[in-house]
Amino acid sequence: MKLSKIALKIDCRMIGDPDVEIFRVAGIDEAGFGDLTFVSNRKYISHIKTTKASAIILGEDMPSVDVPNLRTSDPYMAFARALELFFEPHQLESGIHSTAVIADGVELGATVRIGAYSVIGKGCKIGKSTALYPHVVLYPGVIVGNDAVLHSNVIVREDCRIGNRVVLQNGVIIGGDGFGFAPTKDGGFYKICQTGRVLIEDDVEIGANTTVDRAAVGDTVIRHGAKLDNLVQVGHGAQVGEDCVLAAQVGLAGSTRLGRNVWVGGQAGFAGHLEVGDKAIITAQSGTSHDVPTGAVMSGSPAIENAAWLRSSAAFSKLPDLIRKVRTLEKQIEQLKAMIAK
Amino acid sequence: MKLSKIALKIDCRMIGDPDVEIFRVAGIDEAGFGDLTFVSNRKYISHIKTTKASAIILGEDMPSVDVPNLRTSDPYMAFARALELFFEPHQLESGIHSTAVIADGVELGATVRIGAYSVIGKGCKIGKSTALYPHVVLYPGVIVGNDAVLHSNVIVREDCRIGNRVVLQNGVIIGGDGFGFAPTKDGGFYKICQTGRVLIEDDVEIGANTTVDRAAVGDTVIRHGAKLDNLVQVGHGAQVGEDCVLAAQVGLAGSTRLGRNVWVGGQAGFAGHLEVGDKAIITAQSGTSHDVPTGAVMSGSPAIENAAWLRSSAAFSKLPDLIRKVRTLEKQIEQLKAMIAK
Amino acid sequence: MKLSKIALKIDCRMIGDPDVEIFRVAGIDEAGFGDLTFVSNRKYISHIKTTKASAIILGEDMPSVDVPNLRTSDPYMAFARALELFFEPHQLESGIHSTAVIADGVELGATVRIGAYSVIGKGCKIGKSTALYPHVVLYPGVIVGNDAVLHSNVIVREDCRIGNRVVLQNGVIIGGDGFGFAPTKDGGFYKICQTGRVLIEDDVEIGANTTVDRAAVGDTVIRHGAKLDNLVQVGHGAQVGEDCVLAAQVGLAGSTRLGRNVWVGGQAGFAGHLEVGDKAIITAQSGTSHDVPTGAVMSGSPAIENAAWLRSSAAFSKLPDLIRKVRTLEKQIEQLKAMIAK
Repeated sequence: MKLSKIALKIDCRMIGDPDVEIFRVAGIDEAGFGDLTFVSNRKYISHIKTTKASAIILGEDMPSVDVPNLRTSDPYMAFARALELFFEPHQLESGIHSTAVIADGVELGATVRIGAYSVIGKGCKIGKSTALYPHVVLYPGVIVGNDAVLHSNVIVREDCRIGNRVVLQNGVIIGGDGFGFAPTKDGGFYKICQTGRVLIEDDVEIGANTTVDRAAVGDTVIRHGAKLDNLVQVGHGAQVGEDCVLAAQVGLAGSTRLGRNVWVGGQAGFAGHLEVGDKAIITAQSGTSHDVPTGAVMSGSPAIENAAWLRSSAAFSKLPDLIRKVRTLEKQIEQLKAMIAK
Repeated sequence: MKLSKIALKIDCRMIGDPDVEIFRVAGIDEAGFGDLTFVSNRKYISHIKTTKASAIILGEDMPSVDVPNLRTSDPYMAFARALELFFEPHQLESGIHSTAVIADGVELGATVRIGAYSVIGKGCKIGKSTALYPHVVLYPGVIVGNDAVLHSNVIVREDCRIGNRVVLQNGVIIGGDGFGFAPTKDGGFYKICQTGRVLIEDDVEIGANTTVDRAAVGDTVIRHGAKLDNLVQVGHGAQVGEDCVLAAQVGLAGSTRLGRNVWVGGQAGFAGHLEVGDKAIITAQSGTSHDVPTGAVMSGSPAIENAAWLRSSAAFSKLPDLIRKVRTLEKQIEQLKAMIAK
Repeated sequence: MKLSKIALKIDCRMIGDPDVEIFRVAGIDEAGFGDLTFVSNRKYISHIKTTKASAIILGEDMPSVDVPNLRTSDPYMAFARALELFFEPHQLESGIHSTAVIADGVELGATVRIGAYSVIGKGCKIGKSTALYPHVVLYPGVIVGNDAVLHSNVIVREDCRIGNRVVLQNGVIIGGDGFGFAPTKDGGFYKICQTGRVLIEDDVEIGANTTVDRAAVGDTVIRHGAKLDNLVQVGHGAQVGEDCVLAAQVGLAGSTRLGRNVWVGGQAGFAGHLEVGDKAIITAQSGTSHDVPTGAVMSGSPAIENAAWLRSSAAFSKLPDLIRKVRTLEKQIEQLKAMIAK
């Protein structure tokens, strides 16, 4: 495809030869002849000079370069759209595989695709154009919206709801029993029925092997547009707000609620029954044990305000030195005292 | 159901109108007309005044309220039992699905239920009234007790043992090979056969996508009544004691042994070959690198005694301030020295 | 088997009665009459005196013992090989199960074994003597080498490559979509096609429920001989070097590259776009946020040089005491000033 045509399709301003032929989109280091690449992360600016790509997508604020380039205020989005021009995503075959076990009375929308060995329980409904890859299991009473994609080994437990355009990567488990046990007098535990549902709203994507639990009462909710990475744990009754972003291996204990647009770094954890305000940022490996105000940036375990944590973390490596200094000061003061006492 | 009848069934003392009709058990915030709710966590006491529930289960020590209420020394347990009065848990259909692949000679107890596409290897035995949901795989030689529930996508590897009334949530993997490799002279690794079994004793529950590994020699054991949440890792040869509670994403390295009734917070980790005493409490995100005495409460990474950790964590945010103070003291002492020297 | 014969087979020097009959290899604490045991971890040296084993494998540098023993410079490797003399590993039945769904044109090597309900997509190739246990799903275009073992519930997504002798434990997911979204002006996210592949080179082993994501562009690579434990997350575009060892629950964010022979302790995390040098060691629960030089040993979150971290961690518990001391010093200096001013 000619670069000029790409520029038009992805709304970029073209600089340089419009007739360069592009065959592929590639990363800055791998790109070679015939490739279009991009830089959005400023860490890679120095690579602009050395790339062998035939063209580059760049931010308007980036330095000028010799290679033909496409300018835009949002190079990452332009890259995303350029990729689509060259990539034919893998699609599940159309139709319902003969081995799928579908209970009587299940409602299937038009052009639903269902892969081999999927199992759909009683009372389920699946919206139009939704794809269930091989080996998906829907327990009874599950409702899935339109244009959703459930990859192989996704399990959706009884009565849960999956919205429109939701993408569940492989091994996601929606609606496993919450971790609810009442302690008994003899030191054991009595299992509490987990009667709530899990609701996954529209446009959510959930990463591989992530688990979202149902609660004893009330719903566990992942709100519109939220993105969860792999191996995340969402406890019973928790709520993940609209357009939240949770990186891999994050854990939310029961009943904790994240507001809108909260960003959570990898391996961070939240105690139960917390309220986290809109647009809060919780950095990787943090341990949040208290409510978090709107817009706060929190770090550390236990989590404190990020700016304070950065200072304290820097100071942490000076601790042994500090202890030595204090010991020296103590000696000096004793000496001064002795001198004065003379 | 009339409130008086519920009081009788869940052993509570009734206060207020005995004829209130209850249709559902619900959380304190969601509850409305016709709902019975409960408060056991003191954090929610203030909600007692504002709830729209028709009745509340309360501890004997809770303040008096206007709504009809049920009093008990253990409101959480009363809530658990009340839930059961209104909730019909989802049950796998009876019988053995025609698509289940069951090896010759497998022994199945009475009223065993087996879902679609389950695979049961040679030499397996399954006790009476046990349910295997669709897509459960038992490798050869597995023995499962009575009244156990294995949810979809549970895998039990060769020769492992699952006790009576055990509940394995979806995606649990019992008996994967332990992480055992002998380093070779060329910097590589030689795989060590993992010949041990995993034994899951009676009344254990294990959460979604949790993994419990087999060892090279000897058994990995989860003892009677222990509860493990989702995405937990139990390494080869580890032992989890009776009635232990492990929150989500906890990791136990190989050969570590937890005593009875140990409580472990989310994302906490244990080095290998440790002994953790009975009734120890390890708080969330801790990193335990040494043996833990009976009854100890440990926090932090590396974990230290909780009370000390709380003090040090509070002090951590004062570190930059402390460094400044020490610098000031150093200057002052220099000044004093100079003054005295005069 | 006579001990003398074992000595010969595993290349050990025999001390004591060569005719002792050995029936089993067992751990030092469990071992009894007829068992061969071993000690390689110095933590267990004291057990040498009390073991009831009939013979012990020991390092050349270990104290002399009364029981017959086998000496070697590498007792762990000798143990590994001794185990193989007595252990008949479980093998998947030969042949291709009648329920496997195999697309037209799939190429299968000689003596490939495929278990029940496996699904092999279009264009897949599987090398000779490779075993796919029941319930393995290969999306279209996957190539698997020779002598590989894919356990039940392994999923390999479209176009990924699995090398020779690779072992994937249960529930491993190779090639799930990377966590790539371009932020939109309204606070939402636009999904970026993940067009890259995941390449797993020869002799890699990956633990249960671990996830390795594909990238938007370029390949995610696990290099020759690397070993990953359970529940590990490898982000899009990351590279794990030759003979790396990643313990359970480790997380690598996108585009991070580990060199050769890097050892990573459990629950450690890496930010994205990092370079970690050969033979670096990252201890458990560390949080690496910067490049790591070759051979460095790093600890803590944020990770610093291990020796410094050990000192600071030891100092951490003295922080409250340090604050008190500084307060005392401040008072003493005020007093000294007052005295001098007089």
